[in-house]
Amino acid sequence: MAEFKDRPVNLLKSKFAEDLYKQVKDLPIIDYHCHLSPKEIYEDKVFDNIGEMWLAGDHYKWRLMRANGVEERYITGGSTWEEKFTKFIETVSTAYGNPIQDWVALELEMFFNITLPLKPENAKAIWEKANAKIKDEQLSPRKLIKMANVEYIATTDDPIDSLEYHKLLQDDKTFNVKVVPSFRVDNILLAQDKNYPIYMCQLSHASGIKIQDIETLQKAILARMNFFVSMGCKFSDVGIQGFPTRIAQKSEADETFKLLLQGKEVSQEQYNGFLGYMYLFLGKAYTDRKMVMQLHLAVTRNSNSEMFEILGKDAGFDCVGEVIPINYIRNIIDALNSNKALPETIIYTLNPSMYYTLITMIGAFRNVHLGISWWFCDHKRGMYETLEKLTELSHIKALVGMLTDSRSFLSYVRHDYYRQIVCDFLGGIIKEADDLAIDVAKALCYTNAKKIIEER
Amino acid sequence: MAEFKDRPVNLLKSKFAEDLYKQVKDLPIIDYHCHLSPKEIYEDKVFDNIGEMWLAGDHYKWRLMRANGVEERYITGGSTWEEKFTKFIETVSTAYGNPIQDWVALELEMFFNITLPLKPENAKAIWEKANAKIKDEQLSPRKLIKMANVEYIATTDDPIDSLEYHKLLQDDKTFNVKVVPSFRVDNILLAQDKNYPIYMCQLSHASGIKIQDIETLQKAILARMNFFVSMGCKFSDVGIQGFPTRIAQKSEADETFKLLLQGKEVSQEQYNGFLGYMYLFLGKAYTDRKMVMQLHLAVTRNSNSEMFEILGKDAGFDCVGEVIPINYIRNIIDALNSNKALPETIIYTLNPSMYYTLITMIGAFRNVHLGISWWFCDHKRGMYETLEKLTELSHIKALVGMLTDSRSFLSYVRHDYYRQIVCDFLGGIIKEADDLAIDVAKALCYTNAKKIIEER
Amino acid sequence: MAEFKDRPVNLLKSKFAEDLYKQVKDLPIIDYHCHLSPKEIYEDKVFDNIGEMWLAGDHYKWRLMRANGVEERYITGGSTWEEKFTKFIETVSTAYGNPIQDWVALELEMFFNITLPLKPENAKAIWEKANAKIKDEQLSPRKLIKMANVEYIATTDDPIDSLEYHKLLQDDKTFNVKVVPSFRVDNILLAQDKNYPIYMCQLSHASGIKIQDIETLQKAILARMNFFVSMGCKFSDVGIQGFPTRIAQKSEADETFKLLLQGKEVSQEQYNGFLGYMYLFLGKAYTDRKMVMQLHLAVTRNSNSEMFEILGKDAGFDCVGEVIPINYIRNIIDALNSNKALPETIIYTLNPSMYYTLITMIGAFRNVHLGISWWFCDHKRGMYETLEKLTELSHIKALVGMLTDSRSFLSYVRHDYYRQIVCDFLGGIIKEADDLAIDVAKALCYTNAKKIIEER
Repeated sequence: MAEFKDRPVNLLKSKFAEDLYKQVKDLPIIDYHCHLSPKEIYEDKVFDNIGEMWLAGDHYKWRLMRANGVEERYITGGSTWEEKFTKFIETVSTAYGNPIQDWVALELEMFFNITLPLKPENAKAIWEKANAKIKDEQLSPRKLIKMANVEYIATTDDPIDSLEYHKLLQDDKTFNVKVVPSFRVDNILLAQDKNYPIYMCQLSHASGIKIQDIETLQKAILARMNFFVSMGCKFSDVGIQGFPTRIAQKSEADETFKLLLQGKEVSQEQYNGFLGYMYLFLGKAYTDRKMVMQLHLAVTRNSNSEMFEILGKDAGFDCVGEVIPINYIRNIIDALNSNKALPETIIYTLNPSMYYTLITMIGAFRNVHLGISWWFCDHKRGMYETLEKLTELSHIKALVGMLTDSRSFLSYVRHDYYRQIVCDFLGGIIKEADDLAIDVAKALCYTNAKKIIEER
Repeated sequence: MAEFKDRPVNLLKSKFAEDLYKQVKDLPIIDYHCHLSPKEIYEDKVFDNIGEMWLAGDHYKWRLMRANGVEERYITGGSTWEEKFTKFIETVSTAYGNPIQDWVALELEMFFNITLPLKPENAKAIWEKANAKIKDEQLSPRKLIKMANVEYIATTDDPIDSLEYHKLLQDDKTFNVKVVPSFRVDNILLAQDKNYPIYMCQLSHASGIKIQDIETLQKAILARMNFFVSMGCKFSDVGIQGFPTRIAQKSEADETFKLLLQGKEVSQEQYNGFLGYMYLFLGKAYTDRKMVMQLHLAVTRNSNSEMFEILGKDAGFDCVGEVIPINYIRNIIDALNSNKALPETIIYTLNPSMYYTLITMIGAFRNVHLGISWWFCDHKRGMYETLEKLTELSHIKALVGMLTDSRSFLSYVRHDYYRQIVCDFLGGIIKEADDLAIDVAKALCYTNAKKIIEER
Repeated sequence: MAEFKDRPVNLLKSKFAEDLYKQVKDLPIIDYHCHLSPKEIYEDKVFDNIGEMWLAGDHYKWRLMRANGVEERYITGGSTWEEKFTKFIETVSTAYGNPIQDWVALELEMFFNITLPLKPENAKAIWEKANAKIKDEQLSPRKLIKMANVEYIATTDDPIDSLEYHKLLQDDKTFNVKVVPSFRVDNILLAQDKNYPIYMCQLSHASGIKIQDIETLQKAILARMNFFVSMGCKFSDVGIQGFPTRIAQKSEADETFKLLLQGKEVSQEQYNGFLGYMYLFLGKAYTDRKMVMQLHLAVTRNSNSEMFEILGKDAGFDCVGEVIPINYIRNIIDALNSNKALPETIIYTLNPSMYYTLITMIGAFRNVHLGISWWFCDHKRGMYETLEKLTELSHIKALVGMLTDSRSFLSYVRHDYYRQIVCDFLGGIIKEADDLAIDVAKALCYTNAKKIIEER
């Protein structure tokens, strides 16, 4: 119990937990789902300051500051990075129970070797020490990735993306971390969006196939998917708001798609049928290519119309969506399975009220897994909750493992956070830290994700 | 850990928790939402006996006794107060895990200086000691309010109420506790109720404005609202069963209202549109007056028709209502916000399955707050759950603070209960009971509510 | 804290918990709801081996093995029992947090006196020791029932069942455990099933009443119900997927039923009306016979169509169903109550998101009880959750007690598991293990169930 007690964040409450943690803390990181920019990794510019690193794009932190009453000019407005940083330290100093308080403490420890308490009176000192470190050690994306011992990064990419930076990175012999794209199909499925016809033009252009009906749409998608696979892509993803309530036949889907392609309105019923058809088509395509299908469920985006006008998306105004009826999800998964079109699948939900229905539904299909606590659920109690419910209703080894889902290079500390939680969770159950328990800890922290990747 | 260990209820599990509790336990109480009777406060009659004090109107206790199989004649029937009291002690003696067991122990300690264990064999002694205390110390509403160190009470009042007792209280120089009305609009919105046309007559009468369409309805409401504000009212409230699924235009709302005014039936669709329109109108009116809007969501009332016939409402037959889809709530809040009609708002839910959707939705709007655990959720684990989820998803300082929501003058012990819970919760997170932590504890126990009131 | 520390599963975390447990651990077992086979009890064959005992029909274990990636041939396929057993030990050895890990450890301790750790390297030894024990002690259904100190077993039976084995058992003077049938009406209500007309023929045959309309259906049901009651039946049960959203008048129900009887399709609306009518009819019939009505809610069955084709039902592909709107349930219960047709009722839900709505709704009706954690919820944390929520919202003594709901004679260890949990839960609340606490512990472990049975 003594060894890690002086760390800024120590979640290990038993000797067994510590014993297990020692076995996993230095394992490499496989980040099979994140939103890092391959361009930034390629260009590898030294960061300017800790304020920009923390606050330039992290809407988790923006929300927290708003909830603490900080004015918008210190969040997304024209204040200096130091002013914003100071307001943030003020906010996080009393953000008891919020994971960001733990995460930034871990980031300061891991990347900057700073263990000063997060208090307003230390803001100046932290600002100066961190910035000095950035300058002295020339901290850049690649440097942070290496410091965090990352071996594999799957970014999130649009099917029309040229993947030019993935190509440059793969050709760069000086950087041996694998950076591969993932196939994120949201824009293909958000067919009621006013920009859909334009996006379809772009997809036609990217694929070299003129999209004019469902058949050519499918061909274009497959062309891009094949290109992504040729670039090392093994994961697909979708994170749209709705979920198909039915599956249309191809002829109906074709009719609906033609209307959508012209920017015409279709009924919710029609759209749902089209969506269901596409899930089936995509599932089959992933299966044929041994790709993993990821579903991110139950999110509501851009809840504040006024702020959406000002700041656009990903600005801290999304929220947890309503429970999706399990029968809708089961219908899709079962249809995929019956059509030999169910790939290895990971389902994430943002609404914890869905865990019981979802985990038991997942248990009825061999190659479907529950994803680890996502976004708003990605904190200490949320991770314990996922581990508890998963182990009660399934087998702990069915968990694929941790990902960061982040836009920040500093977020790799969340893998350490997760590893502490996994070890503490196991430490509370096991009777000795024997080989079986060590194997399970390693599986959840590294080997399960490794296996998923190597099998494809 | 030693100082409070002999109290009948001690929830402080760490030294830090005790350190914080010492800083907040003697702060005054601001009870910004309750159902106390201004008439009873004004008349200030000495109570008769502990049986009547506890059991005359407390449907929480009635439910508990029914669940324990006590016959109705000992609950709402013709038995003597001593018989009822004895049955209640019997019930509460084994009500392990129910908050009432803690609350009555705290009430006996705080107001009667009685620490005898709640066991059937002590019923007689508790009855006699408590009644002697009532007589000796002439315990009355004002006496209890002073003993509890209350400085502000916002009662819950119908827009047609004359507020005569508020007036008398405010004119009474011998009583320096602020007692102000709140504007509870349920009867204005329950337009499908068979007594609605009669209520509209009463509202016409009270406002001096003849209500004949939506325009005059609005005028009448504003007249009463202005009167309430002139009497110190700073809070509005609503606690009806439904929630608007849409917002009608004024012309449609006018048509619907005219039908309702005549006692005619309207479709659920029409009623919902009217309701949505009214939420928008009220939000604007509150904003203009800097009033706080309170929404109490997800309740189902009077579930047992047979008992409703016999005992009427508020008799222990209400229950937690179904989850309200977050998109309905978001639509209203977003529409208010887009129309510059979103006042400072506190949203309470009776259904804990809504916390994740609700807290994240709230986080998208600056002046909206989650209300503390309400009614069926207002117990130890429920409070911890609220604190946990709020701190995970928002900032702890966004919590306005405790209220009693009670009809009983003894219920002020729940503020102590809450303060213990807040301090114990913080004590489990912080690394020292420093000024930052003390400030947060004070904010949640007193200063946040104080600020809300002083800002208006 | 010392006394039980060497048991393979010890959940008693305080001295009070131990004190209480000593008072209840040797009480007899009343298993008022299970799926044991009266034929197997009557025939009383000595078991072949621990592999078959554990794995022949236990779909809980099958699910766990599938989640751990074990191939189907080791689960429901043609492998030997020893091979299957070995794969199961491998699976359960790392099934941290899954209740099966605790249950099998308790089964080995209680019935086989084996306390070897559940590790792959012990598989062979456990296999041999357990099988030797079976042979030496001639372990058979009745032997296990006696070892577990069971005094009452209510099986689950179809209304068309002849109950011949119940008769044989009741006539067998060498076996003094009461084994009685329960009236499970699923097949009467699953009227949209393609085999419904055939089932109605069988029911006509069994009852001697030619079923041709709702009137004769009711007569046939009552005839069978009376026969069941004459055989000692005191409990009814239903566990279908849907729940009635409305209640049809008799004439409408008659029309709908006539269509269903001919195998014709009816609308969901029509079916729901028929279902509601039947709930009312059955409630009245149970009330007249002082029977207990059990409702098992929120299950989705046979989620995997492909595996359903291969293995049929009860093969590990069921899952937790969606939340049932509390207003539907309240409408039925309230209608029963208003018609003096609400029998003593126990409601179980598979979806824990329903606890708050359900427990508070139940609290509005005197003779309705929450059933203990069911199936997927029937684990340590699930039981604590039920106890917590029940005690917060109701009175702990309102809980009827434990049942196994199992097909396995070894499952009686779950009563011990439950008793440990009840005592540990109480131990964390009480201030001494006094007579009141002991009485409550006994009520939850034995006397409440005893009373339910003796009152009928």
